Amino acid sequence: MGQAGLLEGRREVRSLDLGLLNEFASIVGKRGLICSPEELHTYECDGLTNFRVLPGAVLLPSSTEQVQSVVRLCHREKIPFVARGSGTGLSGGALPVANGIVLSLARMNRIHEVDLPNARVVVEPGVINLDVTGRVASQDYFYAPDPSSQSVCSIGGNVAENAGGAHCLKYGFTTTHVLGLEVVLPDGSLVHLGGKTLDTPGYDLVGVFVGSEGTLGVATKIILRIVKRPACVRTLLAAFPTTNEAGAAVSGIIAAGMLPAAIEMMDKLAIQAAEAAVHANYPDCGGLLLVELDGPLAEVEALITQVDEICRSNGAWEIRVAQSEAERALVWKGRKAAFAAVGRLSPNYIVQDGVIPRTVLPEVLMEIERLSAE
Amino acid sequence: MGQAGLLEGRREVRSLDLGLLNEFASIVGKRGLICSPEELHTYECDGLTNFRVLPGAVLLPSSTEQVQSVVRLCHREKIPFVARGSGTGLSGGALPVANGIVLSLARMNRIHEVDLPNARVVVEPGVINLDVTGRVASQDYFYAPDPSSQSVCSIGGNVAENAGGAHCLKYGFTTTHVLGLEVVLPDGSLVHLGGKTLDTPGYDLVGVFVGSEGTLGVATKIILRIVKRPACVRTLLAAFPTTNEAGAAVSGIIAAGMLPAAIEMMDKLAIQAAEAAVHANYPDCGGLLLVELDGPLAEVEALITQVDEICRSNGAWEIRVAQSEAERALVWKGRKAAFAAVGRLSPNYIVQDGVIPRTVLPEVLMEIERLSAE
Repeated sequence: MGQAGLLEGRREVRSLDLGLLNEFASIVGKRGLICSPEELHTYECDGLTNFRVLPGAVLLPSSTEQVQSVVRLCHREKIPFVARGSGTGLSGGALPVANGIVLSLARMNRIHEVDLPNARVVVEPGVINLDVTGRVASQDYFYAPDPSSQSVCSIGGNVAENAGGAHCLKYGFTTTHVLGLEVVLPDGSLVHLGGKTLDTPGYDLVGVFVGSEGTLGVATKIILRIVKRPACVRTLLAAFPTTNEAGAAVSGIIAAGMLPAAIEMMDKLAIQAAEAAVHANYPDCGGLLLVELDGPLAEVEALITQVDEICRSNGAWEIRVAQSEAERALVWKGRKAAFAAVGRLSPNYIVQDGVIPRTVLPEVLMEIERLSAE
Repeated sequence: MGQAGLLEGRREVRSLDLGLLNEFASIVGKRGLICSPEELHTYECDGLTNFRVLPGAVLLPSSTEQVQSVVRLCHREKIPFVARGSGTGLSGGALPVANGIVLSLARMNRIHEVDLPNARVVVEPGVINLDVTGRVASQDYFYAPDPSSQSVCSIGGNVAENAGGAHCLKYGFTTTHVLGLEVVLPDGSLVHLGGKTLDTPGYDLVGVFVGSEGTLGVATKIILRIVKRPACVRTLLAAFPTTNEAGAAVSGIIAAGMLPAAIEMMDKLAIQAAEAAVHANYPDCGGLLLVELDGPLAEVEALITQVDEICRSNGAWEIRVAQSEAERALVWKGRKAAFAAVGRLSPNYIVQDGVIPRTVLPEVLMEIERLSAE
């Protein structure tokens, strides 16, 4: 999740002696302190596995007060600390500092409040992304940001990295869905940013905190917006000869003024990897497009016909619409598994989880193809 | 637009002697300096006319360099300054400080760049909101935030106040549409926040600046997103006995999962005032609802039928759909004129331009009715 206190630590890192470890244990309890080398290896990296650093200790606080006490002690003793959620991040946000502390927020996983009339939920940072939706799904609500790792990643990590997901085209990133925050600053003091309503008075400090990769503090309570589940969801798969035609269909859909809930493109390698891993039943093709539309029934049915036409006129030779929720879930399982699945093909797989302006996408894809051929 | 430097000014406001006025004139030119009492009265307030303060002078810089020089001089001499756009704000953001400077940005009204492939426009702060759309309309783009004053208010003021408008339900406030900023800080130095793409790396400082009411600096260049005009727009008017039934229809529309481009409700007084002022041809009723849907033709046509049904089932006794662009423009002219129009009924009209959570709206409306009856 982050590296508040990192700069201080670099100047003079005190190694963690027995006295300090005892002090930490007195805050989080013996069971909240990990310092055996075997167990510490679990925490030496996150999803960016090319970089590994063994931390001095891992602490698992179970309350805001414990986080404050740990951070205050780190501040006093100039010990660098890095907060960590589920460790699924691909940009190394939870990479430890040697001899420093990892502050795992996995035990702070309570959902404090569910307020349906105002469509908001108050959670601790260790709550798993998909569990937010799980808690409100029976009332026809969901939590919109859905990174591929949504079944295991934590809200605290999502906040630190401003996580997106397949549906961020329509629904926005994490920053669109965080209303307020309780934050422990690097000196251990507590601040509250934003609040329970949209656009609270004052500067948008919530917006600055979300995506700050832990450099500003540790979020200990998070107020989230939830969204009403649309009346109807349809997912369309279109198979193209190559990603060029698939890309042209994407441009056509956007130019027609549609805002699909999600558009995802997969190349041959990703399709094969996903297929091998979860048997998503994808067509065997050079470029696959997944388009999801949601909204009122009448709207979705009218638009899905238009998407079908745009895909066909751009060379799609097979189009399927998922006919059940189970089929739809399988389609997304394939896409979301693609990252891990490619790892099965190549253990040195490095993800470039970048954002590319739509206008230069064809150029970038061609260059990638050229590099692959080399 | 704002009041950067206000606090400093409060401590020790130096009155503007001839020497200082000459120094200001040497920066902005004689024609860029206003200090005759008759002319200064124009600048004594903005749309919040209940508060009036005569400034010491008004400066009209025509470049970023001139803004910097003026602000540097104010900083050195501890003269408070307030930036001003068109002065249409309803919250007093351009209210002068006595003996202070008003920095009018009306002359900085150039559109520097129109980049359609990337859907962005670079403007100076004095550019009028509607002129941005005017510049890109022939290419089927528009600038989405549309405050009632859009034909006269400036982008700089929109940025300072994070202006919304009838269409902010679907399209978002100004903050959703500002990608980057060039800002003169209160000491005269220049910073660049954000950039030409969505979600530039680093903290979201653009988000903090937008809506900061001039307390952080003066924006001298603004990079805006523009949006593709939807293929189809339909505006529906529904007449209800009272605002209660109209409000219930709004809830019904939202609950059906629709996201209209705009929903506006008007009460009897607002309808009569708008009618008297611009002859919008509104039905004579106790509660009027304007619902605008936009998007691909098939989507809009399917949804407008649904909106019609929801309105009727909530007691609407007359429903009209604007049949031409001219009819649609007249509908919005009425709504946007309502503010000024009520002023014709009562010169002491004070606007409460507040944001009310949807869940407490019925309560607030009932209390307003009770107070009106007193």
